[in-house]
Amino acid sequence: MDLQGIKRIREVNPVVVNYANFVTPFLVANGLNAVGASPIMSEEESEAEELVRLASAVTINLGAVRREGWADIETLCQAANDQQKPLVLDPVAVGATQYRQQLNFRLLKKYQFDVIRGNLGEIAVLAGIDWQTRGIDAGNGEGDAHQVVKACAQKYHNVVIASGATDYISDGTRVVEIHNQTRLLPAVVGSGDLLSSLAAAFCAVGPNPLQAAINASLTLSCAGERITEKLHDQYLPGSFLSGLMDELANITVAQVEERMKVEE
Amino acid sequence: MDLQGIKRIREVNPVVVNYANFVTPFLVANGLNAVGASPIMSEEESEAEELVRLASAVTINLGAVRREGWADIETLCQAANDQQKPLVLDPVAVGATQYRQQLNFRLLKKYQFDVIRGNLGEIAVLAGIDWQTRGIDAGNGEGDAHQVVKACAQKYHNVVIASGATDYISDGTRVVEIHNQTRLLPAVVGSGDLLSSLAAAFCAVGPNPLQAAINASLTLSCAGERITEKLHDQYLPGSFLSGLMDELANITVAQVEERMKVEE
Amino acid sequence: MDLQGIKRIREVNPVVVNYANFVTPFLVANGLNAVGASPIMSEEESEAEELVRLASAVTINLGAVRREGWADIETLCQAANDQQKPLVLDPVAVGATQYRQQLNFRLLKKYQFDVIRGNLGEIAVLAGIDWQTRGIDAGNGEGDAHQVVKACAQKYHNVVIASGATDYISDGTRVVEIHNQTRLLPAVVGSGDLLSSLAAAFCAVGPNPLQAAINASLTLSCAGERITEKLHDQYLPGSFLSGLMDELANITVAQVEERMKVEE
Repeated sequence: MDLQGIKRIREVNPVVVNYANFVTPFLVANGLNAVGASPIMSEEESEAEELVRLASAVTINLGAVRREGWADIETLCQAANDQQKPLVLDPVAVGATQYRQQLNFRLLKKYQFDVIRGNLGEIAVLAGIDWQTRGIDAGNGEGDAHQVVKACAQKYHNVVIASGATDYISDGTRVVEIHNQTRLLPAVVGSGDLLSSLAAAFCAVGPNPLQAAINASLTLSCAGERITEKLHDQYLPGSFLSGLMDELANITVAQVEERMKVEE
Repeated sequence: MDLQGIKRIREVNPVVVNYANFVTPFLVANGLNAVGASPIMSEEESEAEELVRLASAVTINLGAVRREGWADIETLCQAANDQQKPLVLDPVAVGATQYRQQLNFRLLKKYQFDVIRGNLGEIAVLAGIDWQTRGIDAGNGEGDAHQVVKACAQKYHNVVIASGATDYISDGTRVVEIHNQTRLLPAVVGSGDLLSSLAAAFCAVGPNPLQAAINASLTLSCAGERITEKLHDQYLPGSFLSGLMDELANITVAQVEERMKVEE
Repeated sequence: MDLQGIKRIREVNPVVVNYANFVTPFLVANGLNAVGASPIMSEEESEAEELVRLASAVTINLGAVRREGWADIETLCQAANDQQKPLVLDPVAVGATQYRQQLNFRLLKKYQFDVIRGNLGEIAVLAGIDWQTRGIDAGNGEGDAHQVVKACAQKYHNVVIASGATDYISDGTRVVEIHNQTRLLPAVVGSGDLLSSLAAAFCAVGPNPLQAAINASLTLSCAGERITEKLHDQYLPGSFLSGLMDELANITVAQVEERMKVEE
């Protein structure tokens, strides 16, 4: 397992272009900045090609897309695929509306995404497995998490992260479980969005999408655990958010190695 | 007085759909999340009907609406009225421009809002009472706060919150004053937006809009007082914001009862 | 040197209208609020003229502009020039794409900006001096900072701030260097955007754009130094951001005088 990704991000400062939703871009930008990546956000089609040229990876977050934005997103995806830059999809609340499903399936049909990051409910929808979803929550339902992430990764020939109390990561063959967690990550709206963009940053420094996904998940959840411990496990979402940025800026490979709980 | 609303929110986790402005959605989403509600933000007309179906309440914030957004807003309002979901209006800076007045009065004519939350200057504009306003500030002017909130509530057959150093809440007959306050709430841009969305969350768990408005006001102002005391009443807007999220996540009915200053 | 600007801002509470990007408006709004100004954000052409009438200064931030926004921006700029309200430009990442250069040069040709605030790479692009830029970073390149800011100020007949480890400020004749700094300011995405809007707030209270630019730079960097010291110089971006708002709300003229390092 190659856990040196965070070191490479801090050396290389990869530019990550984000098609962001308007709710969490400040969190995502500052989280990327904290780990050492260089965020740029844009919604304008005419600069997409050039921005992707500057970038080392691209994240598409579908949290709040207006119909007018579809062309912008497609141009970004096309540029990422043409230029062979890693492309990450965050299918926010895809289970909530027909509109979101239409947009997600359209993009997944036309473009190759290297990583998809959602909660288990969202991943199930993309995999075509019945799973109850409700808005931005993970939903509860039948089905086995391993089966869901594996099916989704096989369907789209990529790496899938289903994040939650346990993060399930699959490349269609293997399924890796990350058991590091804190109940405070879900207390921050946008922590999932940040994980998606972190996955893009880690993809930018290799060695492959599966390892990048694992590193992104470990970095966020171990940073979260560290600040949760400093808060003596109190449920303090405001203090946690502030401290999470502090931890992301300082977390080391050794600290991740020390506390990581990875199962396969 | 039924102060159990916060307990019910934490049990039910009501989904609140927000038409948000682009300045404060992160604060609003995290504030809703902190109290136990489940926020979703959208600006896309084609998913409005479905989102409202998932939701238990809807907030329309007019802080930064482009002309292109009018149809999206109207579709959300229509869906909320059709589906009899509580609908809350935040008429941000309605006194500042003709454009804002046009939009507000159009919506208030076509749709039934259960709660309107603004500062006294904004509420006066909606009530048709002369009151000096300037941008996002409350303004100073002649007139009696009781008369203003009562007139507004009577005009629109709903519940009105005029928030400020004192929160005045009326259903057109009664006027309730909430005297809990901290000078730090106005120090956070978006604390009013948050109060509006909290009102929607409390409407979702009943028993009626008046009580929901009172509970929203008490929850935010008592949480604000608690963190202000922990900061030894120092004027520290950054620490306050972070601490406010912590308090909203933990405040209990007993803590509200202990410090509430309600007059009628 | 007139350092009383911060006192005047707290007395007058000038309204600053911002055409903001969607990533950092919450930071900018709260930073303006913390120093005592009154922020308003809008993207709607039809209210531009009226909002500028209410305002004492206008900031145009080009961090994430869609083609559809050009008309809105031009209407704001025209209103500011017509009404002789100070107008500030933030040419975010102008070096990154042709699209951004097109928009920036179009605005600079048609409207008179009183202050331009960018990093050295961005200012060099506007000055027409070759300088390597990459996304939102300052870039490295040949050339002398004094020459760059002076040339830019001469070209556009205004005051230019090139912010970074040292802030270089020029009115085309003089070049003032502000050596107060902390490595934590660049750790916050949007600290540059905030500086641009602070420059507008200081322009609103005079005595002239050069002094306003110096005061804005000193206020932000001295506040940054103060909180950095309280954090014992640890690299903690989350704690820094929260503490920066606290400091901006409380910093005094005497505290700035005590630590300012200004060279000319």
